Amino acid sequence: MRWATTFRIIAALCSAAVLAPLYAQDNTLAPRQVPAKTLPVPTDVSPEMQKLIAAPLRQDWDAKWKTGEDWRRVADAAAAKSILALPAMRERLHVSVKPDIIDGVRVFIVTPDVIPPEHRDKLLVHVHGGCYVLSPGEAGTSEAILMAGLGHFKVISVDYRMPPEAYFPGALDDAMTVYKAAIKTTAPNDLGVLGTSAGGALVLEMMLRAKAAGLPIPGAISSGTPMSDVTKTGDSFYTNEMVDNVLVSRDGFCDAATKVYANGHDLKDPLLSPVYGDMHGFPPTILTTGTRDLLLSNTVRVHRKLRQSGVEAELEVFEGQSHADYGRDDRIPETREAFGEITAFFDKHLGH
Amino acid sequence: MRWATTFRIIAALCSAAVLAPLYAQDNTLAPRQVPAKTLPVPTDVSPEMQKLIAAPLRQDWDAKWKTGEDWRRVADAAAAKSILALPAMRERLHVSVKPDIIDGVRVFIVTPDVIPPEHRDKLLVHVHGGCYVLSPGEAGTSEAILMAGLGHFKVISVDYRMPPEAYFPGALDDAMTVYKAAIKTTAPNDLGVLGTSAGGALVLEMMLRAKAAGLPIPGAISSGTPMSDVTKTGDSFYTNEMVDNVLVSRDGFCDAATKVYANGHDLKDPLLSPVYGDMHGFPPTILTTGTRDLLLSNTVRVHRKLRQSGVEAELEVFEGQSHADYGRDDRIPETREAFGEITAFFDKHLGH
Repeated sequence: MRWATTFRIIAALCSAAVLAPLYAQDNTLAPRQVPAKTLPVPTDVSPEMQKLIAAPLRQDWDAKWKTGEDWRRVADAAAAKSILALPAMRERLHVSVKPDIIDGVRVFIVTPDVIPPEHRDKLLVHVHGGCYVLSPGEAGTSEAILMAGLGHFKVISVDYRMPPEAYFPGALDDAMTVYKAAIKTTAPNDLGVLGTSAGGALVLEMMLRAKAAGLPIPGAISSGTPMSDVTKTGDSFYTNEMVDNVLVSRDGFCDAATKVYANGHDLKDPLLSPVYGDMHGFPPTILTTGTRDLLLSNTVRVHRKLRQSGVEAELEVFEGQSHADYGRDDRIPETREAFGEITAFFDKHLGH
Repeated sequence: MRWATTFRIIAALCSAAVLAPLYAQDNTLAPRQVPAKTLPVPTDVSPEMQKLIAAPLRQDWDAKWKTGEDWRRVADAAAAKSILALPAMRERLHVSVKPDIIDGVRVFIVTPDVIPPEHRDKLLVHVHGGCYVLSPGEAGTSEAILMAGLGHFKVISVDYRMPPEAYFPGALDDAMTVYKAAIKTTAPNDLGVLGTSAGGALVLEMMLRAKAAGLPIPGAISSGTPMSDVTKTGDSFYTNEMVDNVLVSRDGFCDAATKVYANGHDLKDPLLSPVYGDMHGFPPTILTTGTRDLLLSNTVRVHRKLRQSGVEAELEVFEGQSHADYGRDDRIPETREAFGEITAFFDKHLGH
């Protein structure tokens, strides 16, 4: 046995994963008081990224709608605006998008105009983000368009049911339906799965489901800043509160939305908080986050847990970025860099 | 050409590395106002790490001694205390330490009692941290002891000259003297170099020097939370100010110490701020930091620059940790996990 393996095992035995259930807040330990501060816009990112970083806190970041119907109205209004940017993006990236139905589940087939020979037998399944309630329909396709256009892969984007059409585990059920269909037509080793935020969590939840169901795992996955722990555990929920201008606070809109989706289900269930799941046997995983991300901790915790579980896992952390900033606009250099990394990771691991 | 390569090149062309000289603060962009906050001690780390995280801000974090002589007095007093913990640590880890001189440079030869067969032809060179002024003599050996004891490698720890004995580039000169001696007795591919903080920067500076001198590069390097940018550029200098209880502030003791070492030299010289150096051709590199680290940004920026330069680079970010917390005590599970990762990385890359 190589020493690397030995130490991996020792590390795993000693690790937070094993000890986690024993951990508890020691109330004798003093919290840290941090004074108010002013954060200048960083100078070491692109001018385009500087503009995102300088944007004010997201509007309605503390709105806490309480029903699936409320969220659907909010989601539809936001989607009607956000889809206006998609035609130009598809044109810039030379990607076409076609709605379809796979085994009863709504999807979009996202196809780049040019697919290089080594990608012709590859397929990616995409699950969009939006706190399990936002980005219905075409609005959920933007990351799939970035991936198809910048990575030159064919992508199936799952338009999973959201509240009030379905609650937990509806999103996961729909994603699994598409996954099961995909492994019938594509060799699992040629298949990748990707998503960001709630989509990043869904990617991990899909692997837990696939393992439990005895299904083959895909060749590689990309989990971007996953909502891996919706119990508000994770240090950056505190350190990056009011620093991240997208999620802003652990007590903000995304927490409220997730609770509506969970519909009373235990938030610590690994199918809602996958950081608590058993990650042994997961496929190679690339994780992406930013230094200002409210979910920085919940990304690096998944990275550590994967490594403790013997999984090949790569972590990319981008300077100054808030939650999922790396996927907002194809014209930002850091977006092209992030999807370049994800493409390289899929190229390294798919087909083997 | 594989698409991965193509996209790597495109990413590099678009990247911050290329555009960096063009970046500048856009003063029309609004800074973010962050209110005062209270950070609880995270519950998702080991109890031992919780104690480190809960510790008050480092004593004298804002002391700014001005001369090499002042710093030497401070360093000697601190070293006299810190070495008291070393005998027990050496015993726990089954490591012996012997002072020696290599081509005029003081070193410590750090040897584990048991070296596995596959490590017998391997050698690590260690450069300690301490803002270029702290941890003289035996006090600089603690990371080398951790590496030797947890990784079962023979390590040469460089006791480089520090102010007032020598100023920039004295530390780097001494490290290079030992490196040159090491590649005479050990095949470069069997050689690793490691260090943390100022040591993490010195590791990178050594690679810049080795490239410039046409020397062979080592098989792999470990650069822990490197002081890669001493010009106070890096977003976490702001976001983690008063959050990190070790370095605390960009205007604290470490900045003052570095300026004494620099002795008037341009702080943006890549031999003081290696993030500005050309990293093409660097060996595989593992980087380690924590979410509360004041140098989080300066670690992830090096990671991104290495990746943009086509270098195999791994990033490990530990939950809740301040600057270099992963290397304080061998009895902390996260320490064993971090050095397990570094060991696995050296095992993967040395000897090839």
